[in-house]
Amino acid sequence: MTTPAPDKPGRRQLANAIRFLAADAVEAAKSGHPGMPMGMADIAEVLWNDYLSHSPKNPHWFNRDRFVLSNGHGSMLQYALLHLSGYDLPLEELKHFRQLHSKTAGHPERHETPGVETTTGPLGQGFANAVGFALAEKLLAQRFNRPEYAIVDHRTWVFMGDGCLMEGVSHEAASLAGTWGLGKLVAFWDDNKISIDGNTDGWFTDDTPARFEAYGWQVVRNVNGHDPVEIKTAIETALKSDDKPTLICCRTTIGFGAPNKAGKESSHGAPLGKDELEATRAALEWPYGPFEIPEEIYAGWRAGNTGLVREEQWNRLFDQYAAQYPDQAAELSRRSHGELPEDFIAAADAYIARLQAEGPVIASRKASQMAIETFAPLLPELIGGSADLAHSNLTLWKASKSVASDDPNANYVYYGVREFGMTAIANGLALHGGFVPFDATFLVFSDYARNAVRMSALIPAHSIHVYTHDSIGLGEDGPTHQPIEHLASLRYIPNNDVWRPCDAVESAVAWKQAIVRKDGPSCLVFSRQNLPHQPRSDAQVADIARGGYVLADADGTPDVILIATGSEVGLATQAKATLDADGIKTRVVSMPSTDVFDRQDAAYRESVLPNAVRKRVAVEAAITDFWLKYVGLDGAVIGMHGFGASAPAEALYKHFGITVEKVVEAAKSLN
Amino acid sequence: MTTPAPDKPGRRQLANAIRFLAADAVEAAKSGHPGMPMGMADIAEVLWNDYLSHSPKNPHWFNRDRFVLSNGHGSMLQYALLHLSGYDLPLEELKHFRQLHSKTAGHPERHETPGVETTTGPLGQGFANAVGFALAEKLLAQRFNRPEYAIVDHRTWVFMGDGCLMEGVSHEAASLAGTWGLGKLVAFWDDNKISIDGNTDGWFTDDTPARFEAYGWQVVRNVNGHDPVEIKTAIETALKSDDKPTLICCRTTIGFGAPNKAGKESSHGAPLGKDELEATRAALEWPYGPFEIPEEIYAGWRAGNTGLVREEQWNRLFDQYAAQYPDQAAELSRRSHGELPEDFIAAADAYIARLQAEGPVIASRKASQMAIETFAPLLPELIGGSADLAHSNLTLWKASKSVASDDPNANYVYYGVREFGMTAIANGLALHGGFVPFDATFLVFSDYARNAVRMSALIPAHSIHVYTHDSIGLGEDGPTHQPIEHLASLRYIPNNDVWRPCDAVESAVAWKQAIVRKDGPSCLVFSRQNLPHQPRSDAQVADIARGGYVLADADGTPDVILIATGSEVGLATQAKATLDADGIKTRVVSMPSTDVFDRQDAAYRESVLPNAVRKRVAVEAAITDFWLKYVGLDGAVIGMHGFGASAPAEALYKHFGITVEKVVEAAKSLN
Repeated sequence: MTTPAPDKPGRRQLANAIRFLAADAVEAAKSGHPGMPMGMADIAEVLWNDYLSHSPKNPHWFNRDRFVLSNGHGSMLQYALLHLSGYDLPLEELKHFRQLHSKTAGHPERHETPGVETTTGPLGQGFANAVGFALAEKLLAQRFNRPEYAIVDHRTWVFMGDGCLMEGVSHEAASLAGTWGLGKLVAFWDDNKISIDGNTDGWFTDDTPARFEAYGWQVVRNVNGHDPVEIKTAIETALKSDDKPTLICCRTTIGFGAPNKAGKESSHGAPLGKDELEATRAALEWPYGPFEIPEEIYAGWRAGNTGLVREEQWNRLFDQYAAQYPDQAAELSRRSHGELPEDFIAAADAYIARLQAEGPVIASRKASQMAIETFAPLLPELIGGSADLAHSNLTLWKASKSVASDDPNANYVYYGVREFGMTAIANGLALHGGFVPFDATFLVFSDYARNAVRMSALIPAHSIHVYTHDSIGLGEDGPTHQPIEHLASLRYIPNNDVWRPCDAVESAVAWKQAIVRKDGPSCLVFSRQNLPHQPRSDAQVADIARGGYVLADADGTPDVILIATGSEVGLATQAKATLDADGIKTRVVSMPSTDVFDRQDAAYRESVLPNAVRKRVAVEAAITDFWLKYVGLDGAVIGMHGFGASAPAEALYKHFGITVEKVVEAAKSLN
Repeated sequence: MTTPAPDKPGRRQLANAIRFLAADAVEAAKSGHPGMPMGMADIAEVLWNDYLSHSPKNPHWFNRDRFVLSNGHGSMLQYALLHLSGYDLPLEELKHFRQLHSKTAGHPERHETPGVETTTGPLGQGFANAVGFALAEKLLAQRFNRPEYAIVDHRTWVFMGDGCLMEGVSHEAASLAGTWGLGKLVAFWDDNKISIDGNTDGWFTDDTPARFEAYGWQVVRNVNGHDPVEIKTAIETALKSDDKPTLICCRTTIGFGAPNKAGKESSHGAPLGKDELEATRAALEWPYGPFEIPEEIYAGWRAGNTGLVREEQWNRLFDQYAAQYPDQAAELSRRSHGELPEDFIAAADAYIARLQAEGPVIASRKASQMAIETFAPLLPELIGGSADLAHSNLTLWKASKSVASDDPNANYVYYGVREFGMTAIANGLALHGGFVPFDATFLVFSDYARNAVRMSALIPAHSIHVYTHDSIGLGEDGPTHQPIEHLASLRYIPNNDVWRPCDAVESAVAWKQAIVRKDGPSCLVFSRQNLPHQPRSDAQVADIARGGYVLADADGTPDVILIATGSEVGLATQAKATLDADGIKTRVVSMPSTDVFDRQDAAYRESVLPNAVRKRVAVEAAITDFWLKYVGLDGAVIGMHGFGASAPAEALYKHFGITVEKVVEAAKSLN
């Protein structure tokens, strides 16, 4: 039925297997991007067959090389590689490319597909994640390797296109990778001169090699991305670099092999079409039908057994290491499995209880720093950082040591003013394993990192995003720096837990919950200004972790419920005193995390916000509309209706009517 | 009382006036950033006194040079310059730096302060705005200048710090400025090696001059930023560049003159303190008290009269031009004043009426393209662009001509994959005057541009943001590309009008409203997939502009109200048919813009959503929680509760339960 292939297929034929799996899958799905896989197939073939150190039968082997497809629209390249090399991704899955419940989504998704290290598609971020992977490897090697025991020793390889290089995040991530000297990071630039709008001459004229040299990278120029010898030579050059990441600039033809569409944008983001696909088969002398891969081709690709041998060698090395360095081995093992130290929960709870007893009146950003100071010694996997606001975000602790050093305990990243790169790199640190990263900036500048925050929730990554200066309470810096819509916007990102604590106790609980939560990110939102301490029973302290709870109650059924977060909880408790004195039975609900509260069972939610009590006032120094979901059409919200202003915080609270008096007035005005 | 100054103060003394106004204002405010103004004072003095072509008595003079302070935390530099050179910014305002109702906000704000061209502070964006200013100038010159009539002929000067250069948006904007050859753009880099976290050696090691050369810029290296002669020489070099923007790299000392804090981060973001300020007075031999500027110093700065002479010369030139080219002069005048052509409204309304009559069934992104095609010939000020998605966003029209050309009618920007840079550049185009810009990308990638969208609302800028592929309706590209929280998040940005039209008619109205609205941005959100046409009376067509209206009603008081937007309006009308048939009187409200609807008077809102009718179901293929503000605690919302998935659109709608059946079921379930 099929023409017999030569006994041992050549490299081009091995690469062609990628090309046709990609083109056939896109054709079957009637949707997708054949051009990139066809263009990068030869590069991928050399990398995966000659260099990539992995174990297809165990995608979780800790010392594997990390491979990232930053130009994620070429997902079929990755699926073809995973399938051919022996990952658990059967041909049936490729036939269901881009269909519901398949493992072959339109863009590579870590939570769907074994062997996908990170979810990509939003351009530039895969590259930044890769910088995070490479940083994680460097730091773990610094911490755990011993003479003759290079127990952590792998490379990070990343494919990127013109689009990734145009995105600003590539600047931020490349700059840091150069500064940190990540010699085991190798990026392949798919220089095909085509983006969706056509030939890039009109909008992408950077001298990219010179640009990366300006970042301190080693650059290998002018590699023919269809010549395995040139590709190998380039990779060998990369392997020799100890202290600089390498960019390999590969000239390629998008849609390579398609007689009429190669080199054109028409091959980029749509099926080739039946005729062109057949013509491509003829041009590349590929006699096989759709999704047909002969055994000889599989034989040239299979890496499962060599991977097992590789892993077994490493396991032996690790056993010897463990015999000689049992503590380090145990710690690395614990961290690589994402397990918390046994004593963490108890220690955190004891700290929280102590805070409740002591009742410090401090800014919640200071409370955050105290929580870090307390938890970090228990958690060597905690790695912090700020986008050049360490002394404002209060993210440094006593044992902070810059990752730019060779210190084995390096645990702090000076990210510079690079919020997006920071967050995407932190996602990479989290995904690599061995670290629980937190990043930090002002809440308003979460905007700059917005899609990386979203990606941390989607991938998901166990990242912690620390945002201080959380409202008009930041004062004089004015409306450019005052978040209004940000709390609501972050809360609406699915699988993202936003916490805005009202005092030091809630701040510590928020930190604990963010650390304990492994299946997604948390945003911890803190005040610049001091906040009063709130009295609580033990049961109330325990309920903080439920996201919302009754902080102060009335006897019997309340007439009015005040709901508040963060710095406005203090206003609510003061308003309650006035209302109680006026004979209005008032409950105060503190709601540090609406996301977490909404996940509680119906009975608990009803116990906090009884459906029958409709006189409800929410108070938050942020956009009011968000709170209508809790107060309904008959309630009231005290908050912001527009942008802030530049003035001292107290003047702003008064100016914008976020005061005890206004809360009382609103509560009394409800029918 | 004061020591007499020398008859003619030297340049250093002129610059010192900036230094002390800045330091004294920060001291009075007990808040602010003295270091940058003290560091850049000498550069600013040379630029403003010897080169800047402006007219302080008329900040709106159209042919003025544009000056942008991208490192906006140094706002006191700009306020000092404006005050000293004769803008309407009295000393009293400087004394009230960072206080409520002053014209001297913490960061420069265009809507507060005469002479501030754009609001800055969020780093890197002022630089990108400046690229927009320079592009606007180039294009207007191309369009309107005639031999001997360089009627549009000004430069754009921008100050930027290390922070601006670390931000990714600087990469995107610099790359485009180089590609476009914006020879009249001159950027001064305040190379002081200090950012908030300290000496930048640990996190900013780029070879910035080489980087900018890689973008095709002219770079002037190693300028002593405290030596007026070197600064002048550098500027003269910049002036000679026709086809390349210029970066002048100025080595400066942050907090120059402060004996103990100069060159240190301690001068960056806090008052110098009384003692250090006095020591600085001594060190710089500045014998004057706080806010005391002797007449000789003012005399060295005042530019009001020379500005008027300059403006008068230009007015005479313009009169001659108008005599010879009356049509062009009238058009430039109209455009520079932001006035619409007289016939625009009528033509738009006629087009809308025709669409209502014809009833095309098309994707709203296609309807958007038709609106552009119809309106663009009437509006030569319309300048479009997309972040490399022209054929997906459908932003090209027949008369589109790339701005990378010399075409006098150039009106289309191929931004490449640079959403943030695109949006910030478009804001600059809008602020310059003469253009109404629109930018475009997928809705999900509004995330990448997020803070520039916010800035367009805050500044405000008359920018139009076009976002297509607005929901899971985009299908196979999967959750990385499917917006969930984005509609709600954009709606919550104050002063930002979001439109999500349900058919071609609403799409045309949305475009018209976005064009007519001068005092802020609009986000126009369009579907990938085809949408049914909705029947409407003339009155209903007119009410679209009110943001929400009754699209289909019941006889008498409705039992149930269905509220929907965009692609889900069709589901709502189908559900109504079923509900009506079951004897449930159903109203359908189409709500293309909640922002605009919320601004309508109470009587109108009550007429659309009567308070008494509490059985309400909202339908939108986006995060459900947003809609609780309209349906309250007793209503229901059909929409998304988490991330999407990769599959054809129809399969996704069914999978996520956004169907006619589910709407009917929800309506019937309400008590």
